[in-house]
Amino acid sequence: MKFSCFQSDLINGINIVQKAVSTRTNLEILKGILITTEQNKIKLTGNDLNLAIEVLIEAQIEIEGSIVLDSRLFGDIIRKLPDATIDFNMNNNFVEINCLHSNFKLIPFKAEDYPKLPVIENSQTLKIDQNIFKNMIKQTIFAVSQDETRPILTGSLFEILDNKATLVSIDGYRLALKTISIENVKNSKTVIPGKTLNELMKILSNSKENELRIDITDKYIAFEIDNIKIISKILEGEFIKYNQIIPNDFKTKVIVNTTDFYQSIERASLMARESKSATIKLSLESQYIEISSNSEIGSVKDKVNINIEGDKFEIGFNPRYLTEALRVIESEEVILELSSSLSPCILKPIDDNEYIYLVLPVRMSN
Amino acid sequence: MKFSCFQSDLINGINIVQKAVSTRTNLEILKGILITTEQNKIKLTGNDLNLAIEVLIEAQIEIEGSIVLDSRLFGDIIRKLPDATIDFNMNNNFVEINCLHSNFKLIPFKAEDYPKLPVIENSQTLKIDQNIFKNMIKQTIFAVSQDETRPILTGSLFEILDNKATLVSIDGYRLALKTISIENVKNSKTVIPGKTLNELMKILSNSKENELRIDITDKYIAFEIDNIKIISKILEGEFIKYNQIIPNDFKTKVIVNTTDFYQSIERASLMARESKSATIKLSLESQYIEISSNSEIGSVKDKVNINIEGDKFEIGFNPRYLTEALRVIESEEVILELSSSLSPCILKPIDDNEYIYLVLPVRMSN
Repeated sequence: MKFSCFQSDLINGINIVQKAVSTRTNLEILKGILITTEQNKIKLTGNDLNLAIEVLIEAQIEIEGSIVLDSRLFGDIIRKLPDATIDFNMNNNFVEINCLHSNFKLIPFKAEDYPKLPVIENSQTLKIDQNIFKNMIKQTIFAVSQDETRPILTGSLFEILDNKATLVSIDGYRLALKTISIENVKNSKTVIPGKTLNELMKILSNSKENELRIDITDKYIAFEIDNIKIISKILEGEFIKYNQIIPNDFKTKVIVNTTDFYQSIERASLMARESKSATIKLSLESQYIEISSNSEIGSVKDKVNINIEGDKFEIGFNPRYLTEALRVIESEEVILELSSSLSPCILKPIDDNEYIYLVLPVRMSN
Repeated sequence: MKFSCFQSDLINGINIVQKAVSTRTNLEILKGILITTEQNKIKLTGNDLNLAIEVLIEAQIEIEGSIVLDSRLFGDIIRKLPDATIDFNMNNNFVEINCLHSNFKLIPFKAEDYPKLPVIENSQTLKIDQNIFKNMIKQTIFAVSQDETRPILTGSLFEILDNKATLVSIDGYRLALKTISIENVKNSKTVIPGKTLNELMKILSNSKENELRIDITDKYIAFEIDNIKIISKILEGEFIKYNQIIPNDFKTKVIVNTTDFYQSIERASLMARESKSATIKLSLESQYIEISSNSEIGSVKDKVNINIEGDKFEIGFNPRYLTEALRVIESEEVILELSSSLSPCILKPIDDNEYIYLVLPVRMSN
């Protein structure tokens, strides 16, 4: 194998595929990046057996071939080389890397030992603006369960139903759901691992340029954007019937400034974290919510102005479950729909009826 | 105690005194910040018994007094309050903190239990531009020993001799020394703890505005800049006679571009860290130095152009001992003075004869 490419292209590619390279694995080859020549390009591949990422970059190929290089060392070397052309040349036992005055010789792993990527065929394909899908992930990913005892909840349900696509995360204490309109795609249900969505979110940009292509099969989901391809296993099993969880009516409706509410809860949470219950109390009043928390070493009361219709009562929450949602809501005001101290609370951005966040209250001790 | 002050002033002060607050201590009161009213100001104090920092900030005092508040909680609360006036009011058992719609009640420690700061008297005083002293620390602090078995080397010698001030760090493998000219100060030798210098370096700015005042006594050293005062214990004992370590002559003189040399060593160190010896080899040639390293998984050769006068030979180094010095040398070129594979190497910036860095070579296995 013999080729040359630009340092800047190569390091961009390495940074992306490294997201799929295992650092903690007993299989040494999985700590490597597969490099394969492909016409006027080279393809870099990282693969942890659940998630694989491929990146194509421009290269001048002289002799075709494939090798696997240790991801960490290879990445560090390329990162420290100057922004110039790098030449790769495979000899008998080692690959030589030359760039200006620098010469590295590395012993590669054998490309034959690298796991094959699944073939994506008979897939259902849809296309979504990358910034829109990035935002869908951002608004729901934090509600994915970290609890491995219910594996299905460590992923998000991606449901296509009647020309709408919905991404839903549920961890047993809250639910985050975002829907968008799409066109002409068959109904389907796919549970995408949280790690896949997290890495995809980092790769997607906030610009509208270039659509994200999504290919769904019954075992895998593939994402393609620019020169990057992500292939992920799907989680097997039945996701929670989320529609049955979301209440249809409520007794109290509150409108509050998103930032003010977020900052008040942040302050109250400083005292909550000093207490055993780690809970804040929201007391609904006619003009404001009082947000309070008590601990052995002190107490806090914070007020935020609201518009309220309906019953007034007190309700307790884990403050993080509120702030994580308020942080990803972009609209200036947020609507709270509540029914009692023991019923779920719904948060909706005032100008986006396609986002729903549901959170269970905490029973207060007194 | 009753006073009010601006959130922005207060958080700036807290951020500074927190550098002297112990987080790991069995004495609960040392986890606190002492707040004392003082005419039209309040004084914040952090003190870990080796290092104390005081900051004065503007305040409106209504009732005088002092309290101690847990540093972490107090800092987090003030950090999350809006940029507005904060009112403090001590009641029977707690201090009330009010800012716009937020109200905190905190149970303070007793100010009487807070350790008294040493009184600095009969001191020798000198004044140095803060940016100059910051740079002296930056160019020497990294050579302070981390080895607690020789406590005196965990500090830097601050020597005043014949209208020159010199800061010297030695860790047994290298020495970093920076001298500046000063006026009319009596000769003295003081060993300042590395931690004190590290925190002082963070507080000093790169601007020439405002001189740093240094007060030296036989047990303490105090630094004063703007509204900040730092009081530190001095390390007791005899520092190494550094002049006896620095060789007066050499057999080979090399001039090399600082950045090129730094980057070549950085690349070579990637391979060195994979090997048992963790060593790089410098081979002096007529036009260049070849920097190389070998490990079980590969090898590296890097070249950097030089001007050389004198003997040519090979010499081994711990790469970090070279890069840490090259990183803080600002001149474009650096001079290496060498005598043999087993003699110390001296690095000097080409345009600053007041900085000397000496490093011992590593004996190479073959």
